[in-house]
Amino acid sequence: MTDSTPSPNPATLWGRTLADELAAGGLEAVCIAPGSRSTPLTVAFAEHPEIDVYSHLDERSSAFFALGRARRTGEPTALICTSGTAAANFHPAVIEANQARVPLLVLTADRPPELRDSGANQTIDQTKLYGDAVRWFAELPEPEADERKVRSLRTTAARALAETGGPEPGPVHLNCPFRKPLEPTELPGSVPESFAETLAGRGREGPFVDVDRGDVTLELERARPVADALANADRPLIVAGPADPADLRDFEPDRAVELAERIGAPLLADPLSGLRFGPHVEDGPVYGGYDAYADAVVDPDVVLRFGASPTSKPLRHALRDADARQFLIDPAGAWREATFTATDLLAARPESVVEAVLEVLDGLETDENGTNDAWRSRFDAAERRHWKLRDDARTRDALAETPFEGAVLASVLERAPDPATIFVSNSMPVRDADRFGKPRDADLTVLSNRGASGIDGIASTALGAGSAADEPLVVVTGDLAFYHDSNGLLAVDRCDVDATIVLLDNDGGGIFHKLPIEEFDPPFTDQFKTPHGLEFDALADLYGLEFESVSPGGFADAYERSLERTGTQVLSVSFDAETSHRRREELARRVSNAVERDE
Amino acid sequence: MTDSTPSPNPATLWGRTLADELAAGGLEAVCIAPGSRSTPLTVAFAEHPEIDVYSHLDERSSAFFALGRARRTGEPTALICTSGTAAANFHPAVIEANQARVPLLVLTADRPPELRDSGANQTIDQTKLYGDAVRWFAELPEPEADERKVRSLRTTAARALAETGGPEPGPVHLNCPFRKPLEPTELPGSVPESFAETLAGRGREGPFVDVDRGDVTLELERARPVADALANADRPLIVAGPADPADLRDFEPDRAVELAERIGAPLLADPLSGLRFGPHVEDGPVYGGYDAYADAVVDPDVVLRFGASPTSKPLRHALRDADARQFLIDPAGAWREATFTATDLLAARPESVVEAVLEVLDGLETDENGTNDAWRSRFDAAERRHWKLRDDARTRDALAETPFEGAVLASVLERAPDPATIFVSNSMPVRDADRFGKPRDADLTVLSNRGASGIDGIASTALGAGSAADEPLVVVTGDLAFYHDSNGLLAVDRCDVDATIVLLDNDGGGIFHKLPIEEFDPPFTDQFKTPHGLEFDALADLYGLEFESVSPGGFADAYERSLERTGTQVLSVSFDAETSHRRREELARRVSNAVERDE
Repeated sequence: MTDSTPSPNPATLWGRTLADELAAGGLEAVCIAPGSRSTPLTVAFAEHPEIDVYSHLDERSSAFFALGRARRTGEPTALICTSGTAAANFHPAVIEANQARVPLLVLTADRPPELRDSGANQTIDQTKLYGDAVRWFAELPEPEADERKVRSLRTTAARALAETGGPEPGPVHLNCPFRKPLEPTELPGSVPESFAETLAGRGREGPFVDVDRGDVTLELERARPVADALANADRPLIVAGPADPADLRDFEPDRAVELAERIGAPLLADPLSGLRFGPHVEDGPVYGGYDAYADAVVDPDVVLRFGASPTSKPLRHALRDADARQFLIDPAGAWREATFTATDLLAARPESVVEAVLEVLDGLETDENGTNDAWRSRFDAAERRHWKLRDDARTRDALAETPFEGAVLASVLERAPDPATIFVSNSMPVRDADRFGKPRDADLTVLSNRGASGIDGIASTALGAGSAADEPLVVVTGDLAFYHDSNGLLAVDRCDVDATIVLLDNDGGGIFHKLPIEEFDPPFTDQFKTPHGLEFDALADLYGLEFESVSPGGFADAYERSLERTGTQVLSVSFDAETSHRRREELARRVSNAVERDE
Repeated sequence: MTDSTPSPNPATLWGRTLADELAAGGLEAVCIAPGSRSTPLTVAFAEHPEIDVYSHLDERSSAFFALGRARRTGEPTALICTSGTAAANFHPAVIEANQARVPLLVLTADRPPELRDSGANQTIDQTKLYGDAVRWFAELPEPEADERKVRSLRTTAARALAETGGPEPGPVHLNCPFRKPLEPTELPGSVPESFAETLAGRGREGPFVDVDRGDVTLELERARPVADALANADRPLIVAGPADPADLRDFEPDRAVELAERIGAPLLADPLSGLRFGPHVEDGPVYGGYDAYADAVVDPDVVLRFGASPTSKPLRHALRDADARQFLIDPAGAWREATFTATDLLAARPESVVEAVLEVLDGLETDENGTNDAWRSRFDAAERRHWKLRDDARTRDALAETPFEGAVLASVLERAPDPATIFVSNSMPVRDADRFGKPRDADLTVLSNRGASGIDGIASTALGAGSAADEPLVVVTGDLAFYHDSNGLLAVDRCDVDATIVLLDNDGGGIFHKLPIEEFDPPFTDQFKTPHGLEFDALADLYGLEFESVSPGGFADAYERSLERTGTQVLSVSFDAETSHRRREELARRVSNAVERDE
């Protein structure tokens, strides 16, 4: 603090101490929505030199932006809002953060305790507002220049930050009551001079409490049965599901590929696993087309799984139907396996399991090379069929002008710059990325809100992710998701993020054509497909984005042009949902027939 | 059910039974957002002839629309969504419904119990998702053709509806797990023929369980001390705060006015009380300008209060500072009085208190007429000063082209058609309506989201209110609120609601100029005022609204033209927040000086 800074009042003391302690603990970014009660927090974080502030006007979008940033970096992002329903607008993103294990630190300002349940304005019950969706909830004590309170405040801040990043990272909620004055006006005598020192923590570098958490690693002895099972398997398989942010940050794909090679296992890499794209796929047994052929080909006897449940339903069903020993790796021991076919849970970091198993295998005198050639060949053949037929369909469709959204996803991933962050929306884009995104030797970070699979915060999450990485950002979204978080587009300007937004506009919920409800109309069209007729160029105008209507055939070129430009472009590609769905089905049949003939 | 309807599967049976029972209990409207897991509910409600369906694409907006409808009618509106974060998007509106006592019935579809916490897709913990913000939470049993289960289902539906409308109306949450098939495909043998009868309830008209709830009325004997205190008061006062929807529906303003006349009490009517506007104000002692003069004039010795805490902060402070006996009427006994100066809580319906007190007064041989003339005269004088100076300022400002938002609110209420629904946003519009909206002999229903005072669902709540009343709808909103719920504007088209939307655009949070943080810049401009530069004509284009930029001086005419047209117009009036705020302050000083001179 400089000498010119007025001495803090209790609220200011609280805000500054929190910001100071969190910055010392490594917090780098905060998303803030304007509000009065949160003034002490807003002022303190805005003036802190080591914390980047992203300002948002809609708390729902703000929370998803913070989520996206934390998802991309694996590091906690903080959120600040005023009292009242502002805090409830964070709830969807908090749930996604919970389920996708994204570290978020939610700071909700509150009115003083005596005003709760008193009919006071803008005062709601914020205690445990997010229920069990947070790793930890704490209510801060009322601001006061009391030494024990300040020590507890610093300890609580350090603890809250640490709790976002345990074996199961996730959101933490601190409720922060403040009374007036909220702004940094002096309140003589309220905070004695001596507290300037307290403000400086312990007078050493770093946080008030250093938190070191032991890692959850598998002991060698425990890895032996796993290695044995894999080494002796006839049809071993490695399945990499959607990765947590911490996995994306820490996992070494090369080592997983090496393990797959060693045991002769195909490695099925979810588009969100961090393993489908990267240098390691060049010669390794990394497969991405299984969504098309899992039914006919995926029949393992030993499976090693990590990450969340795979995006691919055919793969999930094939794993369900396999008569296999299935090792499920999850450092949080959280049983993310909804078909209930796992036989062994390995509660340890995936990389530690891979390392331990490799070390055990080194000591085994097995010559497994070649033993599984036939097994691997089946995947090779199916994979060749799938990508060949995909490309045939793209060529044919381009000529016939009857393309489908899957072809766009194929181009998006095939032509994405190296490196790039690609954010795919739920509903169809993530499924199409799964089926049509071919493994590629490029550093693509493919992300989605796959924790709870909502379409409620797509633009914001994507832009938040983009704000954290110095590389191109591509967002692929359907029209319903684009509408749902249209407010999030304000961040392009306010938070200075550039993106290429690919808008797959089929005027409603195309995914419902995949479901049996399609046969019942009414209510299919009015209540499920819900065509809206929105013309999104007006939305682009509102937020100062360049808007381009692109024919499906012209998409690839428009996409490459956009990637070369600065600013944010919306490339809108229109599809008829039903036609597009039929094309998808037709291609699926073709692949399925071809693969079955091979088998 | 017609013969051609296929026999239901268990999910269909559940959906139909719920819709049937709720319709029998009087439910008239439901807001539905598209989703797969909610298919059994959506299909059943959409096909029910007695339930109106409003389809929305953003669950947050959907919930606020339902809230608005229920707020306008006092009758429950239902909400349906699919599993996952969709349900969390309801949270802000559920909190508002809780605090503002609006009956809402939330039906969240869920995946079957065995899939929870299993890593299954789009599956979150929906149990007690809204915490204590609902009157009742229940988890429906899994659909099955079991007689006891079906009886419990009908009983639960009847009970849920009843719980939305007790002495403290509010939201109720039913979580509804479903397993496939979700659509009305036959599943032979799953629901025996005999269940067709069960489907028809008890084979009589009306609900399966008739719910009659005794009303909370004040006994005559208990009213006697209240009547005595009021009759013997030197400076009695009646304060009508914001009304609950049930009050707006059932309360008779004439009787409150009669009571005020009888005891010589000024009746201070909040703009949201249902008492500021209507035929009863013509000759009764109804005052609306107190926000400007409470400090100098409001000094009662006995107060009768009903409704929520008044919008006016000067009034709240004057009541806090008065040395008075204060009777607080609240049928829910919920102590909505954050200055903690109430001396007596009357937990009974306001109309029953008014009737009982009038009846007691009839029996008293008092001649109170004239005893309080001086007291009433002070209010008359202050009121005259206030409205005169308001109108002088409007005239002068119109000439000088330096108007302020308050002048617009004055015109909105003064020139509103009779009858009309006027929805005013939080932040400044509701405060300006309070200070500048003169009592008027016209049936204006003035509403706001004053339970939690959020700006997060203004357009939707307003349009929901408009959907329920066959009269013009006027919405007054600031630019931040307009942006925040821009998605809600889709309801203009999808739900076929016409409105005149008055957009007070001062490019950011003008209210922050009222607060001391104004003096601290940075961070004032970037983090509080948050100018965004959005040009809302593009937003109007997106949603097919007519957009008109209106100068403050030309507002009144443009407003009247809009009211004569069909379709929805956005009348955008631009203000400089700071200038506008200074004008407000200046006028306040003038009124205050004039009133103090009089005193």
